[in-house]
Amino acid sequence: MIKMEMDESERCDAAYQGAAGAFSEEAALRLIGQDARLLPCERFEQVFDAVERERARHAVVPVENTLAGSVHACYDLLAQRKLTIVGETVLHISHTLIAAPGVALGDVRKALSHPVALAQCEEFFRRHPMIEPVSVYDTAGAVEKVVCGEMQNAAAIASRRAAGVYGGTVLAEAIQDHKENYTRFLLLARAGEHPAPGMEHASDYKTTLLIKLPNSLGALFESLRPFAERRIDLAKIESRPLRGSPFEYLFYLDLLGSASDEKVREALDELRIRARSVRVLGSYPRA
Amino acid sequence: MIKMEMDESERCDAAYQGAAGAFSEEAALRLIGQDARLLPCERFEQVFDAVERERARHAVVPVENTLAGSVHACYDLLAQRKLTIVGETVLHISHTLIAAPGVALGDVRKALSHPVALAQCEEFFRRHPMIEPVSVYDTAGAVEKVVCGEMQNAAAIASRRAAGVYGGTVLAEAIQDHKENYTRFLLLARAGEHPAPGMEHASDYKTTLLIKLPNSLGALFESLRPFAERRIDLAKIESRPLRGSPFEYLFYLDLLGSASDEKVREALDELRIRARSVRVLGSYPRA
Repeated sequence: MIKMEMDESERCDAAYQGAAGAFSEEAALRLIGQDARLLPCERFEQVFDAVERERARHAVVPVENTLAGSVHACYDLLAQRKLTIVGETVLHISHTLIAAPGVALGDVRKALSHPVALAQCEEFFRRHPMIEPVSVYDTAGAVEKVVCGEMQNAAAIASRRAAGVYGGTVLAEAIQDHKENYTRFLLLARAGEHPAPGMEHASDYKTTLLIKLPNSLGALFESLRPFAERRIDLAKIESRPLRGSPFEYLFYLDLLGSASDEKVREALDELRIRARSVRVLGSYPRA
Repeated sequence: MIKMEMDESERCDAAYQGAAGAFSEEAALRLIGQDARLLPCERFEQVFDAVERERARHAVVPVENTLAGSVHACYDLLAQRKLTIVGETVLHISHTLIAAPGVALGDVRKALSHPVALAQCEEFFRRHPMIEPVSVYDTAGAVEKVVCGEMQNAAAIASRRAAGVYGGTVLAEAIQDHKENYTRFLLLARAGEHPAPGMEHASDYKTTLLIKLPNSLGALFESLRPFAERRIDLAKIESRPLRGSPFEYLFYLDLLGSASDEKVREALDELRIRARSVRVLGSYPRA
């Protein structure tokens, strides 16, 4: 064997989806530190792969936006793969229209961005009917394309930071329909690899569960009872219909506390009797 | 006054968002009847306006998709306006690539559709890198544009039905990433206008609530207790963070039963003491 194991020094600190300048990159820098070595990936699957194959120590992925709701694609990967949540952060999302230097707003005929970002700027497109929204895989990659490609009739919608990364010109700022636009990101690691928690008080922890329920509607409520009876607080709760009617349920739940707390452990044991499956995706310090 | 009230015979049966051939139109025909007179609207706001101003008797809007999750834009309008939910239906969503007659798959350089539909066909775009996804306001409107505009290098992604409506050619079928793609639609009416329920048994009803909670995490669970204690079954539950961290919560809840059932009434009275606000959006026969 020529190549043994990857040298620890070759491993990046975190993988994320998107290009340099992406909102996920910003979240990664905030979670790990401003000098973190990061690995941009084109797809969420590759972000998970990078950590599983030890090319990166952590993954940073978005799971929830105040306007668009839960990012089900990431929850699906959390369910399919074996990574553990070890942290979270919340980022304010503000969209900026960015073009190559020299391009004016009046020249722009199309705006490239991620479909979710395009959908969050509907008012802008109504006010500028000459600009056609074009979907691409990520916001920062769109900036790279229009700036480095020196496109004369196109702009990108991304973070202000992305303009700086690629040397683009800002044509318009805060073009999103709603100002209260926040995205929550999770920090993931291989099970067992994450650093020992630095905090002592369980009230500062959050635990994320993924619960599959039998196809009976009463089950949804019964599965909450173990938490209610122990007065365990919830921070997020969402049922997700999985199949054609009558729906089968997948259920996202964030509770306050750690899975190693006695009352949380008891509640989980009780829940496991009732649910089809329960995955503890991780216990981690609250943002 | 020249124009008194709109003649009842001028009123459409239902308004929906999108153009003829939209998935919402299909849902409206299924809910109201195949010969219903329908009013297509460009935006969700206009759909609600049409019913409030009595241009249409009902509105049909999507609220939940098995892949994309809740349609928060519609829940926001349900919260802001005064319409009542009087029915629901669930539609299987299958995406079709449609072009003007004579256009072949190899000619296609862009595919127009709603951003959510584009996002649901990622695999198709990866397999066809020459085709650029372009965001437009609705799926069927995209078909109208490419077929009636006789575009030679563009196609649209929409329902198979839309191809028939505009005389387009089907280039590829079932191009969505996941087959289990369902959307739930609600039938809305002005309060007091909806027909008396035809069913006698409360177990066949569903009630949708919109609950605003004070900014304390324990409140989320406490607001569920009145339902748990009365063994009222839940069909959907979702907390939605509304602000920057620490989040304030909006809470969607579907329960089995009618708001006129005694135990549901009692639970609602108890809930109102704890919640910042509770809106009963409607009680309606289950799909």
